[in-house]
Amino acid sequence: MQQQGKMWQRSGIITILTDFGQRDGYVAAMKGVILALYPTAQLVDLSHEVEPQNVDAGAFLLQAHFRYFPAGTVHVAVVDPGVGSARAALACEAGGHFFVAPDNGLLDFCLDFPDLQAVRLTKKEFWRETIASTFHGRDIFAPVAAHLAKGEAMRHLGEPFTLHKRLPGFECRIADKTLCGQVVYGDRFGNLISNISAPRLHEFAQGQPITIWLAEHLIGGLCQTYADVPPLSPLALIGSFGFLEIGLNLGNAQTRYAARPGAPITVRRGQLV
Amino acid sequence: MQQQGKMWQRSGIITILTDFGQRDGYVAAMKGVILALYPTAQLVDLSHEVEPQNVDAGAFLLQAHFRYFPAGTVHVAVVDPGVGSARAALACEAGGHFFVAPDNGLLDFCLDFPDLQAVRLTKKEFWRETIASTFHGRDIFAPVAAHLAKGEAMRHLGEPFTLHKRLPGFECRIADKTLCGQVVYGDRFGNLISNISAPRLHEFAQGQPITIWLAEHLIGGLCQTYADVPPLSPLALIGSFGFLEIGLNLGNAQTRYAARPGAPITVRRGQLV
Amino acid sequence: MQQQGKMWQRSGIITILTDFGQRDGYVAAMKGVILALYPTAQLVDLSHEVEPQNVDAGAFLLQAHFRYFPAGTVHVAVVDPGVGSARAALACEAGGHFFVAPDNGLLDFCLDFPDLQAVRLTKKEFWRETIASTFHGRDIFAPVAAHLAKGEAMRHLGEPFTLHKRLPGFECRIADKTLCGQVVYGDRFGNLISNISAPRLHEFAQGQPITIWLAEHLIGGLCQTYADVPPLSPLALIGSFGFLEIGLNLGNAQTRYAARPGAPITVRRGQLV
Repeated sequence: MQQQGKMWQRSGIITILTDFGQRDGYVAAMKGVILALYPTAQLVDLSHEVEPQNVDAGAFLLQAHFRYFPAGTVHVAVVDPGVGSARAALACEAGGHFFVAPDNGLLDFCLDFPDLQAVRLTKKEFWRETIASTFHGRDIFAPVAAHLAKGEAMRHLGEPFTLHKRLPGFECRIADKTLCGQVVYGDRFGNLISNISAPRLHEFAQGQPITIWLAEHLIGGLCQTYADVPPLSPLALIGSFGFLEIGLNLGNAQTRYAARPGAPITVRRGQLV
Repeated sequence: MQQQGKMWQRSGIITILTDFGQRDGYVAAMKGVILALYPTAQLVDLSHEVEPQNVDAGAFLLQAHFRYFPAGTVHVAVVDPGVGSARAALACEAGGHFFVAPDNGLLDFCLDFPDLQAVRLTKKEFWRETIASTFHGRDIFAPVAAHLAKGEAMRHLGEPFTLHKRLPGFECRIADKTLCGQVVYGDRFGNLISNISAPRLHEFAQGQPITIWLAEHLIGGLCQTYADVPPLSPLALIGSFGFLEIGLNLGNAQTRYAARPGAPITVRRGQLV
Repeated sequence: MQQQGKMWQRSGIITILTDFGQRDGYVAAMKGVILALYPTAQLVDLSHEVEPQNVDAGAFLLQAHFRYFPAGTVHVAVVDPGVGSARAALACEAGGHFFVAPDNGLLDFCLDFPDLQAVRLTKKEFWRETIASTFHGRDIFAPVAAHLAKGEAMRHLGEPFTLHKRLPGFECRIADKTLCGQVVYGDRFGNLISNISAPRLHEFAQGQPITIWLAEHLIGGLCQTYADVPPLSPLALIGSFGFLEIGLNLGNAQTRYAARPGAPITVRRGQLV
């Protein structure tokens, strides 16, 4: 009974991540649908400026930021190039949080949580009456998120579903004494976030100094903060996402190096000059 | 008595539509004024990225999206090229919702509701004490919206007003066996939304296949979803606004065809090869 | 005792000003941290589109807009080029409002308030457990703002601190019968806001007509509203910030005159032609 009580606990908060932008009112329509069902919901925009149809970027932001919200928060994520096709619509519970999204990789990170439960959304009584084939965000995902946030049980929303990895993923590897990763996200400041986590980097370094390259560009050793290098100089540090980042102090590394997600980042032990 | 009770019902939600952008804090100042009067209001941004002074675009978004909010919501809309001139400031009740806006066409769609009531805002006790001639959004519309949302009666805010159509409007027509409409809005994905509603289109088609043109460009028949055509191919479908839309699967139709609001869209019965 | 009651009064509102943009979820992470501590906080975005690391612009917007919120509101401002360096992190109480920001000039305007109190944030029990050296917004400023908004006393957050002016400031002066000011902010409409306040201008004019220049460009006399001049003509008026502004009716003065903050604005008594 106590466990069931725990299962139903909700924070009253719903975050929304989309690639809709803020210009056309699509996000507002989703919020209207949510508030019609749950007028006192605490709504938070996670981001709506994901590059259109860039599922990788949406997945990166969702897994990076959901953890700062209290347990029992519902996160609805709609970057959905396959809207209207046969791709499943999902709700997941993982890590004490709830997620509502299409089955296209946005929720891959949920596979890391041992408490993962997923359902395929099939119960139309939780949807809007009319479903536009191009806007499941408003007509399916938003109302389901509202019902979840109000305390509806996952199992009522649809059938049990086995989540599978959909995106190539963010793994780095060691080859020839080199830690090989890649850029996975570039932020608006031009910082290039890699898939090399802080623990992975420290395990590799074994307490020795290290040297970092972005593709063929030598960046240098590991810094603590931007001010460690002169203005417009490159640096590598553990950024706020907890991963190795390449930046320029007071400048834009993405522009300087014309680097995109996928660009290789390599780390070797030892210090150059 | 029961009716009066109904008249006073409010949802506690206030949506805000402007052409102010989010950069300069103008929207935040409006929210501050609202919250000083009604600290627990549920505030929702409908859009602030309306092209500066584009009343047509603001009117399109307001009439498209207000309906997803619960009845008793107050919608304040400020796209106001005539700010400081003699144009009236209005509050309307229509379709169970409340609207606060300048009298410049933003509220034309309210004329379709049989329960329409409008007042010209004249009672200065509901405004801020000092009125900047360039920012009625903050000094008149925001405080009036807060008072309305808290339950103030429309008739206390000013004098009865007869609303008249101010914009050319969005009517399509049939000529020479052709259904003739036009683009009325282009969204951030480059989809071109027309003024041809789903019922109007189906009435015209009479169950036969149809063919659709954007200006001189042949688009094709009516699709159900983007994935019905190959990537970067054009398609026509009933979009989430409930109107015929022209798009490119995974691409941008607005850029491809250099089409702007006003561009003609024509529909004929029959199927081209 | 009564005074102590007053000290603890809070509005439940937290505004957030940053240069983070809305794309990368950094603002959402701050909101998650706040809501984990204070789930029913009323959160308002003041602006997140401050030009990266432009402390002047952030300071301008914060001092311009905070006053529209009710007393007891907490304003957290993070434009922080020195993040991770030795610059202090502050909380201030001034004018009945609370401010949380780095000590880099964002809070200079607080020096105008006789009730100013400031503390340097040193009590780590009010921070997140792990502090990223590049994101004090999330790890220090956000949780401190949440605690303040819930009613925590300023003095519990750190040590008393004497605030000093950090930015050159916005003073105008009279020289050779000319009132000399400068552009301090350009808004998204291209209006150029000066540092010449309405009272200062009226005191200088002494009831006579005046003529206004932007650098070498003659703008004209003082107008009341944009519609006072033909479309695309320049005008000067007291804008909604309460300062002299240069604009173009239905146009963009910033683009027309290629003017940036720092551009001189001069006013002389008398009317040309």
